[in-house]
Amino acid sequence: MLTLKHLPISSFNENLAYINRDCSVYKIDDINSLVKIEVHGGLKTIYAFLQVVNDPKLVKPNELALNNEAFKQINLPEGAKVSVSLSSLPPSLNSIKRKVAGNILSSGEYSAIINDITARRYSNMDIASFLVASGSFMSAPEVLSLTEALIGDKTIVWENEDIVVDHHCLGGVPGNKTDLIITAIVAAYGLPMPKTAAHSLTSCAGVADTMSVLANVNIDEKRLKELIKENRGAIVSYDSLDLAEATRIIANVEKQIGITEKSHIAASILAIKIAAGVTHLVVDIPVGPKSRIKNTNEAMRLRKLMEYVGDMLSLEIDAVITDGSEPVGNGVGAVLEARDVIKVLKNSEDAPQDLREKSLFLAGRMLEFDPKLRGGQGYFAAKEILDSGRALEAMNKIIKAQGKVSQPKLGGLTRDIVADSSGIVDSIDNSRINKIGVMAGAGQYAGAGIDLLKKAGDKVEAGDILYRLYSCNSTDFAFANSLIDAYNGYEISEEEEEEEENEEE
Amino acid sequence: MLTLKHLPISSFNENLAYINRDCSVYKIDDINSLVKIEVHGGLKTIYAFLQVVNDPKLVKPNELALNNEAFKQINLPEGAKVSVSLSSLPPSLNSIKRKVAGNILSSGEYSAIINDITARRYSNMDIASFLVASGSFMSAPEVLSLTEALIGDKTIVWENEDIVVDHHCLGGVPGNKTDLIITAIVAAYGLPMPKTAAHSLTSCAGVADTMSVLANVNIDEKRLKELIKENRGAIVSYDSLDLAEATRIIANVEKQIGITEKSHIAASILAIKIAAGVTHLVVDIPVGPKSRIKNTNEAMRLRKLMEYVGDMLSLEIDAVITDGSEPVGNGVGAVLEARDVIKVLKNSEDAPQDLREKSLFLAGRMLEFDPKLRGGQGYFAAKEILDSGRALEAMNKIIKAQGKVSQPKLGGLTRDIVADSSGIVDSIDNSRINKIGVMAGAGQYAGAGIDLLKKAGDKVEAGDILYRLYSCNSTDFAFANSLIDAYNGYEISEEEEEEEENEEE
Repeated sequence: MLTLKHLPISSFNENLAYINRDCSVYKIDDINSLVKIEVHGGLKTIYAFLQVVNDPKLVKPNELALNNEAFKQINLPEGAKVSVSLSSLPPSLNSIKRKVAGNILSSGEYSAIINDITARRYSNMDIASFLVASGSFMSAPEVLSLTEALIGDKTIVWENEDIVVDHHCLGGVPGNKTDLIITAIVAAYGLPMPKTAAHSLTSCAGVADTMSVLANVNIDEKRLKELIKENRGAIVSYDSLDLAEATRIIANVEKQIGITEKSHIAASILAIKIAAGVTHLVVDIPVGPKSRIKNTNEAMRLRKLMEYVGDMLSLEIDAVITDGSEPVGNGVGAVLEARDVIKVLKNSEDAPQDLREKSLFLAGRMLEFDPKLRGGQGYFAAKEILDSGRALEAMNKIIKAQGKVSQPKLGGLTRDIVADSSGIVDSIDNSRINKIGVMAGAGQYAGAGIDLLKKAGDKVEAGDILYRLYSCNSTDFAFANSLIDAYNGYEISEEEEEEEENEEE
Repeated sequence: MLTLKHLPISSFNENLAYINRDCSVYKIDDINSLVKIEVHGGLKTIYAFLQVVNDPKLVKPNELALNNEAFKQINLPEGAKVSVSLSSLPPSLNSIKRKVAGNILSSGEYSAIINDITARRYSNMDIASFLVASGSFMSAPEVLSLTEALIGDKTIVWENEDIVVDHHCLGGVPGNKTDLIITAIVAAYGLPMPKTAAHSLTSCAGVADTMSVLANVNIDEKRLKELIKENRGAIVSYDSLDLAEATRIIANVEKQIGITEKSHIAASILAIKIAAGVTHLVVDIPVGPKSRIKNTNEAMRLRKLMEYVGDMLSLEIDAVITDGSEPVGNGVGAVLEARDVIKVLKNSEDAPQDLREKSLFLAGRMLEFDPKLRGGQGYFAAKEILDSGRALEAMNKIIKAQGKVSQPKLGGLTRDIVADSSGIVDSIDNSRINKIGVMAGAGQYAGAGIDLLKKAGDKVEAGDILYRLYSCNSTDFAFANSLIDAYNGYEISEEEEEEEENEEE
């Protein structure tokens, strides 16, 4: 038996076990042969990946050390006695081979794969293999099987609620924080909306990041239920609810390999919403040449897929295809986006109208889930709530109940990006703006981001400011600037003055 | 700038960088956002994956620690000043997305992918993604592109040699160490054969493991050239020649994810052989229901694929489809296999005839690469060399020149597996025998393995020993025994005595 030690190292969701090369119990002859091991302690067995240590000051020959992830999972004190055995590959890995060979996998196979992922029996490499193998083709019943498997053991049950609504946007459009405005409107209307939000993975801000600027989002299930009872609405980080664990493990790998397949997105979103007890879901599918979904055919396929899975799992889905051709709102990055949201809720004169209109449109669809509302009246009901200030009031209550936070400041390093020539802003490249923002630190620092002062269709003179970059530290700032210098994301076409004049006549 | 420290941890080919959570230079706010980093020191930039450390005893806030792999690559002393930047995903990852979407990748794309893999810009996750994405379908020109990319920068040039021959077996058949016998015969004949051999990845012994029982196999290029000049033959580990580095990085990931696609095997083998300067290659493709290649159609496709790639890259290939339905020879595992090889070379009475015949057949094909040899005479020339003792003599010279080693002992833990019933051995399951052997420690310990005392077609009485298991430690021994107890790999059919009697009449 070896003596347990804790090496306080965080390794991004992977369990690592450190053993001395001169281990007193196990012969570590050929390190290439021993990669995945099982660590047994007490009644617990955990899976870990072996790291071989040469230095007894780090790990003694009679010790086995675990990193933060593994130490937390084995849940034993340092000094406990543990043993090790070689772990064979989990049998569900055979299903991945079958998928590579072009087969349709059964519901049982998806269930076994997701169970093994949740039990940390898969390395991140294995998870990447699964994602890529299934990413190239999944039949609709396979997406259903994957969704069911991803839901996991724990679901929130909403007693005394006939319908529980939520909204999810598939992303790819910078800014676009309709969720906060929608939640305020829907809560003011009176439908229960426990908005489970994510932190940024690859964008300038997740909904949870933007809400974090205004309020605490780390809320557990018990408190969430109180909040919904009190205010009908809440915007919380779904991490803190500990739901659909496999979706988070998978998202971590997707981020690292930079590959996110639409069938997996659909399955993950629906699994999370079902686990959260949602019964009625509006899905915003933005379409644009530089958005995540490039064309309406693709959007339509995704819509039908989600409708099919929703129908089979009793989740009512209203999937709406929207214009994702340019950023929505002016701010990109948590602090700037929160500013836009508050402007809209306050009906400020300078509130971004595209954000306001899109939020009203989507909130209207949400309200129409209420059987009592007459068809076609959702938008007007939403508009009345926003215009009357009841949405702002609802948001203030939500913020107070979740716990107000001291608002983070905008980054101190700024740069104004100006137009080289006069003309009309022809287009703004979503993916470029997102990349510049992420490089500037957005997604990581709330105060980093981009304030878009000109939008598509706006007239500009040479020297006018197109957007302002905010960064919190010089490394990020330099990165973002080098990107901007190569291509700033704006296309400006020469103004055709004569034609315009003709049109004005 | 941070101060460089070395943490003596081996992490299976991945570069890891450890930074204190309270790092004095970089703000590690949200560890999920910072995964892949670049470490800059002197004129060198290396890529590494971040591990966040909580304990200043391990890594101080002003330090950056590297594991063995990364410390070796950056090649700076402890105490050197280094800086860190966020690494963006390598652009070639986009090609993987294109492959997932079903596209044919260009030669330039394969070249970029392999360059990035060699530069350690890919995580093991990324490599797994590439292998799985390309594994499901590659066109023949894509396999050609991959092969060319895998060859790498360094190739061995054999001056004053018209042809340089080698042999490679695709594996999946336990035992089967024809390579050592073939090399001895070919060297005795006089053709130059620098056999580049691999250590076991998933089998009970690679050719390099079996040769290691007899001689040193860690030979560099300079010495290899001397050996070939002296003896015409050598059997060396290709790791020690530092050729086609990407093939080794890829093989490591293939082993860990348990997925090995035939197109990748073909590309890797041909790249290694071309990098080693081989001009003429015999490829043994064993076919059997429990072998790696299951049927002749599959074998034929692989043969044509290798012939196509070989033709395009001026490597003459003679791909031979052989019987892989059961193990070849009696010994499985390095020590036992070496014993069989020596028996064949010594023309011992109890030498395994299947191993002898297969080696002669393949050596014959090799010899026919010699333009001076009359067609159809290869087998007889090989047989004459073996029978006359010249092959043994050549092997003894080779062993002496490479450096004789003290032969490792067979494992001390043994078990005789006996027949439950009388009858005829109908079949022996290759993959089961391999798995039992690997679990017993073969591939890791030279002395572990299986000695097959009965082969297919042999008559057995209940209680007769079918095979003997050897293991070097009790953990492995217990593992192998539990496998054997579930299924020992032998199928014994009832002897139909009457029919036999009839035949004898």
